[in-house]
Amino acid sequence: MLPRGRPRALGAAALLLLLLLLGFLLFGGDLGCERRKRGGRAGAPGCFPGPLMPRVPPDGRLRRAAALDGDPGAGPGDHNRSDCGPPPPRPSKCELLHVAIVCAGHNSSRDVITLVKSMLFYRKNPLHLHLVTDAVARNILEMLFHTWMVPAVRVSFYNADELKSQVSWIPNKHYSGLYGLMKLVLPSALPTELAHVIVLDTDVTFASDISELWALFAHFSDTQAIGLVENQSDWYLGNLWKNHRPWPALGRGFNTGVILLRLDRLRQAGWEQMWRLTARRELLTLPATSLADQDIFNAVIKEHPGLVQPLPCVWNVQLSDHTLAERCYSAASDLKVIHWNSPKKLQVKNKHVEFFRNFYLTFLEYDGNLLRRELFGCPSQPPPGAEQLQQALAQLNEEDPCFEFRQQQLTVHRVHVTFLPHEPPPPRPHDVTLVAQLSMDRLQMLEALCRHWPGPMSLALYLTDAEAQQFLRFIEASPVLAARQDVAYHVVYREGPLYPVNQLRNVALAQALTPYVFLSDIDFLPAYSLYDYLRASIEQLGLGSQRKAALVVPAFETLHYRFSFPHSKVELLALLDVGALYTFRYHEWPRGHAPTDYARWREAQAPYRVQWAADYEPYVVVPRDCPRYDPRFVGFGWNKVAHIVELDAQEYELLVLPEAFTIHLPHAPSLDISRFRSSPTYRDCLQALKDEFHQDLSRHHGAAALKYLPALQQPQSPARDG
Amino acid sequence: MLPRGRPRALGAAALLLLLLLLGFLLFGGDLGCERRKRGGRAGAPGCFPGPLMPRVPPDGRLRRAAALDGDPGAGPGDHNRSDCGPPPPRPSKCELLHVAIVCAGHNSSRDVITLVKSMLFYRKNPLHLHLVTDAVARNILEMLFHTWMVPAVRVSFYNADELKSQVSWIPNKHYSGLYGLMKLVLPSALPTELAHVIVLDTDVTFASDISELWALFAHFSDTQAIGLVENQSDWYLGNLWKNHRPWPALGRGFNTGVILLRLDRLRQAGWEQMWRLTARRELLTLPATSLADQDIFNAVIKEHPGLVQPLPCVWNVQLSDHTLAERCYSAASDLKVIHWNSPKKLQVKNKHVEFFRNFYLTFLEYDGNLLRRELFGCPSQPPPGAEQLQQALAQLNEEDPCFEFRQQQLTVHRVHVTFLPHEPPPPRPHDVTLVAQLSMDRLQMLEALCRHWPGPMSLALYLTDAEAQQFLRFIEASPVLAARQDVAYHVVYREGPLYPVNQLRNVALAQALTPYVFLSDIDFLPAYSLYDYLRASIEQLGLGSQRKAALVVPAFETLHYRFSFPHSKVELLALLDVGALYTFRYHEWPRGHAPTDYARWREAQAPYRVQWAADYEPYVVVPRDCPRYDPRFVGFGWNKVAHIVELDAQEYELLVLPEAFTIHLPHAPSLDISRFRSSPTYRDCLQALKDEFHQDLSRHHGAAALKYLPALQQPQSPARDG
Repeated sequence: MLPRGRPRALGAAALLLLLLLLGFLLFGGDLGCERRKRGGRAGAPGCFPGPLMPRVPPDGRLRRAAALDGDPGAGPGDHNRSDCGPPPPRPSKCELLHVAIVCAGHNSSRDVITLVKSMLFYRKNPLHLHLVTDAVARNILEMLFHTWMVPAVRVSFYNADELKSQVSWIPNKHYSGLYGLMKLVLPSALPTELAHVIVLDTDVTFASDISELWALFAHFSDTQAIGLVENQSDWYLGNLWKNHRPWPALGRGFNTGVILLRLDRLRQAGWEQMWRLTARRELLTLPATSLADQDIFNAVIKEHPGLVQPLPCVWNVQLSDHTLAERCYSAASDLKVIHWNSPKKLQVKNKHVEFFRNFYLTFLEYDGNLLRRELFGCPSQPPPGAEQLQQALAQLNEEDPCFEFRQQQLTVHRVHVTFLPHEPPPPRPHDVTLVAQLSMDRLQMLEALCRHWPGPMSLALYLTDAEAQQFLRFIEASPVLAARQDVAYHVVYREGPLYPVNQLRNVALAQALTPYVFLSDIDFLPAYSLYDYLRASIEQLGLGSQRKAALVVPAFETLHYRFSFPHSKVELLALLDVGALYTFRYHEWPRGHAPTDYARWREAQAPYRVQWAADYEPYVVVPRDCPRYDPRFVGFGWNKVAHIVELDAQEYELLVLPEAFTIHLPHAPSLDISRFRSSPTYRDCLQALKDEFHQDLSRHHGAAALKYLPALQQPQSPARDG
Repeated sequence: MLPRGRPRALGAAALLLLLLLLGFLLFGGDLGCERRKRGGRAGAPGCFPGPLMPRVPPDGRLRRAAALDGDPGAGPGDHNRSDCGPPPPRPSKCELLHVAIVCAGHNSSRDVITLVKSMLFYRKNPLHLHLVTDAVARNILEMLFHTWMVPAVRVSFYNADELKSQVSWIPNKHYSGLYGLMKLVLPSALPTELAHVIVLDTDVTFASDISELWALFAHFSDTQAIGLVENQSDWYLGNLWKNHRPWPALGRGFNTGVILLRLDRLRQAGWEQMWRLTARRELLTLPATSLADQDIFNAVIKEHPGLVQPLPCVWNVQLSDHTLAERCYSAASDLKVIHWNSPKKLQVKNKHVEFFRNFYLTFLEYDGNLLRRELFGCPSQPPPGAEQLQQALAQLNEEDPCFEFRQQQLTVHRVHVTFLPHEPPPPRPHDVTLVAQLSMDRLQMLEALCRHWPGPMSLALYLTDAEAQQFLRFIEASPVLAARQDVAYHVVYREGPLYPVNQLRNVALAQALTPYVFLSDIDFLPAYSLYDYLRASIEQLGLGSQRKAALVVPAFETLHYRFSFPHSKVELLALLDVGALYTFRYHEWPRGHAPTDYARWREAQAPYRVQWAADYEPYVVVPRDCPRYDPRFVGFGWNKVAHIVELDAQEYELLVLPEAFTIHLPHAPSLDISRFRSSPTYRDCLQALKDEFHQDLSRHHGAAALKYLPALQQPQSPARDG
């Protein structure tokens, strides 16, 4: 960057530089910390050494004072700031900063999101994230960033599996596995036009603006290519235990959790050859890498010390098990990046771990929606879809009594699919996934549901970021739930006052991986045999291939908490006869399920066809490619009814299964429903939604849609919960 | 602060200063922004003008470029950083910073907490808060800070009511009322030894470290005493509407939402006289202040322009209705303080309001527990009780299977009493407050409870910071709840895995303001007549004064959601006879209420005495000074039983009221209980708690406690929810 100031400013700049240089010549290395000393403190530690930093001496040992800020050996006294010295020129206001992260699997994907939240919280520059991912992480993160719609953040994905062969020959004992080695191949994997990049481990948390880190590139000499913080443990000194033989390193070596990479220089210097040569040679005498890429980076640096620019310790405060990081953070008043580089992560023993955990929890639980804030004065290409969304939102009329409904319909929720480790079901031609959605107040249903449904499930959870963490702990604490790898949990982050029931259903439906889906609700427990019975029925009936049909699972309800679930249709009928069970909504809304024809079901031995009627909302099994739910129905009411109308309009047969049943358990009304039951505008808005729904129906189905008009103009069905 | 560096560093500092001075003399005001220009940008705006700032010219008009950063008139181009220029020396690492805030009433107290959270999030220095409060705010904030236990934060309170007379003679039209004027008297109200203070309005949010603001004191000339940001609206130009006649000000005037006060200099300059003289003179021609203290500050400054040091605009970005703040924030990349200075607050119209709202919501919903982090390397006096707490926590053994219980018992929860506006009940000798506790999943009970209990209530809510905001919206959306000023809601912030049921009960109990309390649970609805009946019974029986007794309210339950609440004992008995109601826990745990003797109650015409028996846990009415609940019982089980044991041990008579009843409504088991019902260690730990409880009981009551030993050694009662 060249100065672009007014001529007078330029002159001033030139003279000031001259004067600074004069000062430097006269006072040597101490000048760099002048500002701190004006602040009343002495001593170099904590200062960024910058161009005044001693170079690595020929014996390959670093002067530790330079690299490890706050090292007590470096000088007396306490230390004021870590950002004194000639502060590196910050990147210009709208300069795009590049960040590369390697990420694989479900758990690392969650970690990356926390890291990204911390980075976005403090950032003031546009960012381009270069994510090297496996298929699982890509699936998760692509959807997440697509729905997050953060302004001035671009994301590119690189296929980690294609890079595997370049590192798979290296024996590695580190818990990060093969992916831990992939940072080595970034110079060739990232686009050739990319010259600078910050490389981060997934287990770091920012506590400051990443542009300050980027600014440190300016301190690289003409030949330096790798910026690193010194390792904050004695690992590479090789004295941790008897016969401990670490890879070679300069002194304590460097930690590779945070790296500034000059990709251009590394490519020029033949990095590809360089690290492979070193790794091959070391592997002649060492059995494997212990710390993955870090061992190889250190071995290369030991051989080519001119490559490395040591960074201030605050940019990678390492909370490993034998950490010496306290030397750094007790001296510096600013911690910039925290690195949870122990396999124990947050459980690491450290007397200040609470302090660091608080930083981490801040971003773990931080509402990611709040990071959708623009960067003032940095025009950037809006995220895909953002412009149309802005326009649609701008067209809404705040005075419209249904404004809240319309705004909610337009809300794009962040979606984190497969929040927890998940194994896709093996491909089976008649397999069926239970699809449902829930919020925090229905978590208690999950254990019972797992006992009743031994097959795959796809569940959408409507949660805040903090609730998502509570959910995680809830699953971990339940042996029943923790054991199920075939239940996929998709977190849809809360935003807005109305429960987006159909958007949630569509997320769960889209993520179902079997050819058939059972569209259920979370407060229903299916018959124990239902999973097997449905698969058999699907096969028998030739559902999907020979027959376009929706299989109806008759619904019942109990009004009692304590109730013994029937093990067969016979038992169910007995309970029905003694009044311990009812057909679903028998008392308040019989129309919802009357067309199922419970009297016929009682006697039925074979599936029978029923006709659609107004307000019918049965629970059905359909092929996965069935019509989606209409997302305009937010809050409560008409959300399932509209879906059944659409199935009927698309000429799905409705076939009731004679041995199938599902039972609704009682629960207190949810907060969401309480809020709207009493609202006078609620019914009016729902009618408006129904009118618009019918207009769309007519557009798609023409005169055939006339059939549904009376149903849509009927007096309002009671508000209900999903 | 004098430099305390090594001699060589001192020499370097001196020379550098000399060189900088030389540069300044040669290049004037432009030098201040040198570093930015090196960063590649031109123009002064966004820079802190510091000592290079033009003084206010004799005509009293400010050169706006100086005070309002980012003013387009100041020069071309975009702007890089606002923290360039000779950055003011930051306060030294552990320097104590003083902040004064005027706060009155329930709503302002909530605002102050959000402000303090934002300040604590970024701060790196010890803070001393000087809070000028009315009685309501003091009650709230004293408890809050006492339980918050933030290291390196000291809080002093000053009685606003005592200061009222000093400003009450000033007619004021501003929405902040009398309290809005109190900043004027801070120089005399704050301790004389206090020389510097930052004064903040309750409606500001920090987006940066307050020490950067404090550092601006160093830029004051020898005579300047008040640091202020220029007003970001045209108000004081007097051209907003016809006949708009604002108070006199320099140009746009200054905004007093953020003030740096040199108290020492103001006292020396006779501030007391100065502002009174000016105010009196202006009030001869102006009817009242429109913007409270701000009008008077501006009028004084217009007369004594030498007093003011203009501050960079980013330190008070004003989101008022006609704000010109965009000039500031679109140029600066760092916003330091956001000021919601419209009476509409977050509802203000501003095209970037979403951006600012996100900042605000960040701290509104931020988990305040995470701010309990220490300041490394700044030894400070620990908050009261913190040391004992640390010791007790340190003595816990992590291997102890009951570790979670013991840790939860020791947890000090932040408590925000009277979270919403509340009017204490008028003193009445037999009045009774309903006391209960709940978490988010029982909010739906509140409306029904309000319909059943027309008297005062004291409710403890166990919530996260984010849930507290949802709760607020829930109340606002409910006409029934919003209308009740006699229901006091006390928020106890969540921390730890176990529900601290008895700690919650004690918070609600301690805040009850009537002489009697009805100790209930949230899932019970009392008879419609109970409030009146209890007051009559208390009077009749001479409870408290003549008789040490606990009045038992017999408890029933329904297992159905839809159920018509009985209007009399006769109706209740009829429902009981047809099996629509049961006595409480009749099926699972009859022992809990059997001693109430329901058969006798059926016939009773007058109160009758019953004897304590093992596991008895009736709902009772007692004088407010009754024994507290034992906080060791966290999670579920034995929490009420232990309280009744204590009442019996203290020789409270147990008197059953013949016309009183309360009915439990069904609900799904709470998450907290689900978690522990299945835990094998839960029962063991509860037994350990019971043993310890009995040891304490013996210590207090001697041989009399032997009576309870068999009850404590009985097989475990089933876990239950509170």
